[in-house]
Amino acid sequence: MLSGVRSAARRKLFRADPADLLGVANWPEAGVAGHHQQQHWWAALEHNFVLESTDDEYGGVVVDADRLPADKAAFARSLAASLSYWKSVGKKGVWLKLPVDRAEFVPLAVKEGFKYHHAEESYLMMTYWIPDEPNMLPANASHQVGVGGFVINDQMEVLVVQEKYCGSSLDGVWKLPTGFILASEEIYTGASREVKEETGVDTEFVDVVAFRHAHNVAFQKSDLFFICMLRPVSSEIKIDETEIQAAKWMPLEEFVKQPFIQEDHMFQKIMDICIQCLRKCYCGLTPHHVVSRFDDRTSTLYYNVAEPEDVNCSAT
Amino acid sequence: MLSGVRSAARRKLFRADPADLLGVANWPEAGVAGHHQQQHWWAALEHNFVLESTDDEYGGVVVDADRLPADKAAFARSLAASLSYWKSVGKKGVWLKLPVDRAEFVPLAVKEGFKYHHAEESYLMMTYWIPDEPNMLPANASHQVGVGGFVINDQMEVLVVQEKYCGSSLDGVWKLPTGFILASEEIYTGASREVKEETGVDTEFVDVVAFRHAHNVAFQKSDLFFICMLRPVSSEIKIDETEIQAAKWMPLEEFVKQPFIQEDHMFQKIMDICIQCLRKCYCGLTPHHVVSRFDDRTSTLYYNVAEPEDVNCSAT
Repeated sequence: MLSGVRSAARRKLFRADPADLLGVANWPEAGVAGHHQQQHWWAALEHNFVLESTDDEYGGVVVDADRLPADKAAFARSLAASLSYWKSVGKKGVWLKLPVDRAEFVPLAVKEGFKYHHAEESYLMMTYWIPDEPNMLPANASHQVGVGGFVINDQMEVLVVQEKYCGSSLDGVWKLPTGFILASEEIYTGASREVKEETGVDTEFVDVVAFRHAHNVAFQKSDLFFICMLRPVSSEIKIDETEIQAAKWMPLEEFVKQPFIQEDHMFQKIMDICIQCLRKCYCGLTPHHVVSRFDDRTSTLYYNVAEPEDVNCSAT
Repeated sequence: MLSGVRSAARRKLFRADPADLLGVANWPEAGVAGHHQQQHWWAALEHNFVLESTDDEYGGVVVDADRLPADKAAFARSLAASLSYWKSVGKKGVWLKLPVDRAEFVPLAVKEGFKYHHAEESYLMMTYWIPDEPNMLPANASHQVGVGGFVINDQMEVLVVQEKYCGSSLDGVWKLPTGFILASEEIYTGASREVKEETGVDTEFVDVVAFRHAHNVAFQKSDLFFICMLRPVSSEIKIDETEIQAAKWMPLEEFVKQPFIQEDHMFQKIMDICIQCLRKCYCGLTPHHVVSRFDDRTSTLYYNVAEPEDVNCSAT
């Protein structure tokens, strides 16, 4: 599993300190390049044209976005020279992050053969795969992640909403509160936050009871939607008027009898699962913090903790 | 839950047919704009400058990427005129998809106040939020999705690999085959594919036994990693030499005793779960195709199908 370039050692590939020039020219890799190409990057070094960059763990380079040339002409010259140089020393992938205030460099990089990889509000990441073999660079993010909250009180009433912008097929339908999780947000906090935002009700996360995987949703990306069981710890409703038309506590039976659930294979299945959970016939996945030396990160592992009396172990 | 712009009705916002001009000028929304602004877009209409676009479901517009002006000057003029016009008619979000062969338009759109939203190899999506209120446009994809395969044979041997590019902390470690799922790929097919690619072994998917959620992984995005139980249906090993150093069947006991598992909280927990599965003390989530009228899509719902004899129901 390629873990991306972020964990790459950030050592310098090359700084055009004149004292280094001879040393670089004597690198053994230089011998594999053609005479013309050598001349090209040698000239580039002499003129201090090669873009500042660091090596990544996979034989590639990451251009330093904070030390790009000042103007278009210098960037175009440096980019061409750098590519020749990187090719001559056998580099593989090139990562070029162009901050939004360097947007005028984008067409120049495209002209040089760079491809778009991904973009965030503040930058566009472009890549160039040098080897004459299949591109091994990791893909960009592929999924959006949504959560839905099944919140039921002691009177067996479900917390439901009517959305303002739901498309005509859902007009008048009472549904579970749903939403997308925010950047770096946990599923268990995201589910409670969405319920709180849409309805004003405070909840405690119980478990993930199921998840749905769908494709070609927004921007042709895929979607993972986690159905979460939540326990209400307050009851008063106060809706978010920008997104929600109405919210209320609705008897479970009445909720399930709505035609949009009765006539929909997916919603029917989801409600079956939630009702099995209530009867304690179903075991969802609960979040547990785990630490790993593998990537020195704390993360959340969701798994099923069955009570000993709930399972019949047949040891192998 | 905003479901993105793809499902938006693709009706025309405006085509500069001279016969329509008077009708448009008489739209009630026009009255709210200032005299200067009205003059501006009126002039734009007369000169056929407004970019071709369609409405989305959320009061926004989607510029038609196939009908952009031919050159930079015309694009800059049209973009400014279009923004004035869209503002004057109370539009909210503007989606501007610039194909890679129109990269020269990127700096012009940035100059006009557009922001980067996301990019794929063939295009850059830019957005402009017109209202003087918080931006309600949906975020771009937030997650990459990985899979790991726990494949164990009748001799209680686990299928393990050594990766070529794994970082020094994992040097010499035997681990489960892992990888990212491809665009629009299912978790259950992705897990089997990765095992096949890395080891040559054919498998049948059993279930998702747990998943891990981590943040700030590649490109600051989050990562969902699904641990999958797979049943081998072949045994001969043939490795993918570009990614894998070695693969073999390793006794479960020996695999678990490796220091990188013994000393790692996360891997220990994952192995505990896999062993519980083998003992039938644990119930993972199995994939089921579901169809929903909600978005007219077939998708996969992962849930826990406990055998009746495996659970003690205590009906509420």
